[in-house]
Amino acid sequence: MAKKKTDKVRPQVLKGFRDYPPPEQIARETMIGNVRSAVELMGFLPLQTASLELAETLLGSHYTDDNLAELFGFVGPDDVNMALRYELTVSLARYVAANPNLALPFRRYQYGNVWRVDKPGPGRYREFMQFDIDIVGTSNILADAEIIAAMVAVFDGLGINNYKVKYSSRKIMNGLIKFAGIDDNKAADVMRVVDKLNKQGKDAVIAELGAGRTDRSGDKIKGVGLTDSQIAEIEKFLDSVSGSGNSLETAESLLGSVQVSVEGINDLKAIESHLSSMNIDKNKTEIDLTIVRGLAYYTGPVFETVLLDLPEFGSVFSGGRYDNLVSRFVGKQIPGTGASIGVDRLLAALIELKALKLEQSVSKVLVTVMDPERLPDYLKMLHQLREAGIPSEIFVGDSKNITKQVKYADKVGIPFVLIVGSNEFEAGQVTIKNLKAGKEKAKETSEREEWLKAEEIQVTISADKMLEYLKGELG
Amino acid sequence: MAKKKTDKVRPQVLKGFRDYPPPEQIARETMIGNVRSAVELMGFLPLQTASLELAETLLGSHYTDDNLAELFGFVGPDDVNMALRYELTVSLARYVAANPNLALPFRRYQYGNVWRVDKPGPGRYREFMQFDIDIVGTSNILADAEIIAAMVAVFDGLGINNYKVKYSSRKIMNGLIKFAGIDDNKAADVMRVVDKLNKQGKDAVIAELGAGRTDRSGDKIKGVGLTDSQIAEIEKFLDSVSGSGNSLETAESLLGSVQVSVEGINDLKAIESHLSSMNIDKNKTEIDLTIVRGLAYYTGPVFETVLLDLPEFGSVFSGGRYDNLVSRFVGKQIPGTGASIGVDRLLAALIELKALKLEQSVSKVLVTVMDPERLPDYLKMLHQLREAGIPSEIFVGDSKNITKQVKYADKVGIPFVLIVGSNEFEAGQVTIKNLKAGKEKAKETSEREEWLKAEEIQVTISADKMLEYLKGELG
Repeated sequence: MAKKKTDKVRPQVLKGFRDYPPPEQIARETMIGNVRSAVELMGFLPLQTASLELAETLLGSHYTDDNLAELFGFVGPDDVNMALRYELTVSLARYVAANPNLALPFRRYQYGNVWRVDKPGPGRYREFMQFDIDIVGTSNILADAEIIAAMVAVFDGLGINNYKVKYSSRKIMNGLIKFAGIDDNKAADVMRVVDKLNKQGKDAVIAELGAGRTDRSGDKIKGVGLTDSQIAEIEKFLDSVSGSGNSLETAESLLGSVQVSVEGINDLKAIESHLSSMNIDKNKTEIDLTIVRGLAYYTGPVFETVLLDLPEFGSVFSGGRYDNLVSRFVGKQIPGTGASIGVDRLLAALIELKALKLEQSVSKVLVTVMDPERLPDYLKMLHQLREAGIPSEIFVGDSKNITKQVKYADKVGIPFVLIVGSNEFEAGQVTIKNLKAGKEKAKETSEREEWLKAEEIQVTISADKMLEYLKGELG
Repeated sequence: MAKKKTDKVRPQVLKGFRDYPPPEQIARETMIGNVRSAVELMGFLPLQTASLELAETLLGSHYTDDNLAELFGFVGPDDVNMALRYELTVSLARYVAANPNLALPFRRYQYGNVWRVDKPGPGRYREFMQFDIDIVGTSNILADAEIIAAMVAVFDGLGINNYKVKYSSRKIMNGLIKFAGIDDNKAADVMRVVDKLNKQGKDAVIAELGAGRTDRSGDKIKGVGLTDSQIAEIEKFLDSVSGSGNSLETAESLLGSVQVSVEGINDLKAIESHLSSMNIDKNKTEIDLTIVRGLAYYTGPVFETVLLDLPEFGSVFSGGRYDNLVSRFVGKQIPGTGASIGVDRLLAALIELKALKLEQSVSKVLVTVMDPERLPDYLKMLHQLREAGIPSEIFVGDSKNITKQVKYADKVGIPFVLIVGSNEFEAGQVTIKNLKAGKEKAKETSEREEWLKAEEIQVTISADKMLEYLKGELG
């Protein structure tokens, strides 16, 4: 452990980590509040689990030191191997397994940070927030329909209009794998590779299913090693269901003889019917049989989303059914299904779509301290404003300069400034400066300096009209 | 790193960690929402910082491996020493130092988990949440008054009535230390020991200021090594200001010749006057000169609280002024002041005080599936309920047994159950079972079994009256 020997510490965050300054954090809180409202209306209950887990909880009992190094894992107190969670679903499975008296099905939501050692990049951090919804303890396909309905409710609740929730079932692809004579133990790899279809394109997927390929940065990517005829079957399927027409019918005609595929097709038909009964707009969801998702543990329906105005954001809300996850812990199957929001990616999308505005401040009024002798009077005004429910603050800085106090309000983004000098006190009046008005006209800093001093953006009114005036202005 | 060789993983949390099941998490969310509202009305802005920090950020540049082991610290990716934060203030100081263009004074709140390697015990966890409010970038004592005002606003907003925010200033005790001829480098230790006055009693404090003592479990506690006459000065001060009467006057008479004490006394007078101008109830705050707080970095006013009905909970909201914390990072002083809530301790207190009720469920209505053929009709009802803003769910479990479905609602805590069989459909009616009514009468499980089947706790009404009826019942 090398240590610095200088006295001062450089004020920096760890590589791949970040802070959320107030404007972004205000937006995040608003967004999370909206998502919570949407899913609570559907009966999802909040759960919070520990951030650190036993290494074997996250990795299973046969993990290696290398596996642990892929997480933020370490030897903690009492010599126990532990790691920060990299997602929320495994902790949910652990919670369900540990609470045999839990009422099932368990509808729960959880939001919180997860940590991954991935190489950081633009928009890719090592600490980020996920918001998960899951229903555990039922194999009923109605639960999968509820997850899709919740995804729709969340987007609608956030004011996003132009999106599509796409869904399919792993079972259809599992049947295809059987039909093509591909070995079962290659199934997870096939899913992982086919999942790249949208991002990497068909040629890359075909190459990776076979002998492998070289990616843009020149790195070798190992192939799954399927035979040409096996690859041809997969290609034929993907081509057929990508075309126009009813993809379920197409899948039936190709895989009608494979029982597991037929089960998957019937599941999708049931989901489609349930969504229609729930009156969900047909344009908001779509069966897309090229979707498989990359995670190894999915066993049935899988879900992802596309923001049609921002397709480059990828899927900001995805998931699927996982019927074997809890059996890592207990000797019985407790099936589950769910989906996860990448909170910060979705937030970036909302800002991009102007569905959410970045607010600089929560305070609406700054009470300035022009005459320190009158501080008790300023504090009384402050009290009045807050009692009236108007978020307000008094200038608590060291400066007595009124221009500096007004500049503070401008910089923080407080729209109104209250100025009361001895003249006003004598006349029973207050001056209210409206920093919002005309702000658009004065974007340049130099202009703003002038404008902050301007008299015409202020009113001087009777002190007992102050609250009424501000309430009117603030709507 | 020893590893288990069995296949199944025991579903357990790490020692000192815990989950928050829905009833507690619902209560936490409600409480945090109320605290946020209270402090946002006062202009505090939300900030979120990274959970992991560089070791030197948390520990200063001269830390040892032992210091790192006192945190959840480890060598992370790229061979960097890092640790989970153990509080939020140091990260705030790091944030302020890294953002020289930040508008000051910076009023911010932050809530989030912190991690400590302390020995776990009843109510003491290694991961717990803090909610901090701070004002950074001003030495104006008005900022300290705002922190106290915010503490009062938070308690009031949570519906707690019988509490006292107590405050003092480190400067008074610093003057006493000088007056008693105690070496400056012992000041932090004196504060740490005097802070134990309320919990451990005067005898323990006196002993620990001198040669040391043996605690209840037989462990030796090292003493600060003050002389008898130095200890006598401290004892005299503590006795004098603990008595009835005006403790500021008492302090003035004892320490009027020591400049730093006089500064502290004047600070407290100013705070008292500001709080009065803000119209804060005199019974809610109190100057208590025996209060010093234990943390090394406080330099001025210090705050703590007592819940008068639950004094054994200790201070659930405490803090103070720290004028040198940011200088760990930059070569200038950026003074700050603030206070921190122990979220889970305060939550336990709220539940104990019955100021917050534990809710089992968010759903108000369970739509049962009596006749699977009529699923589309059940889903339409579900849609109607949600459209009307009534949190509702449909039974998505695998069982078709209506008694099991009703039991699910009872176990989760859903108050109303909708039951519609073919008879009701034909007659255009719905049956609504009220699981809340009479629930108090049937506390025993055996009684509840009977009661769940009882006919008298249900009504059968026209389907088009369903929403109206439920809205009436739900208030």
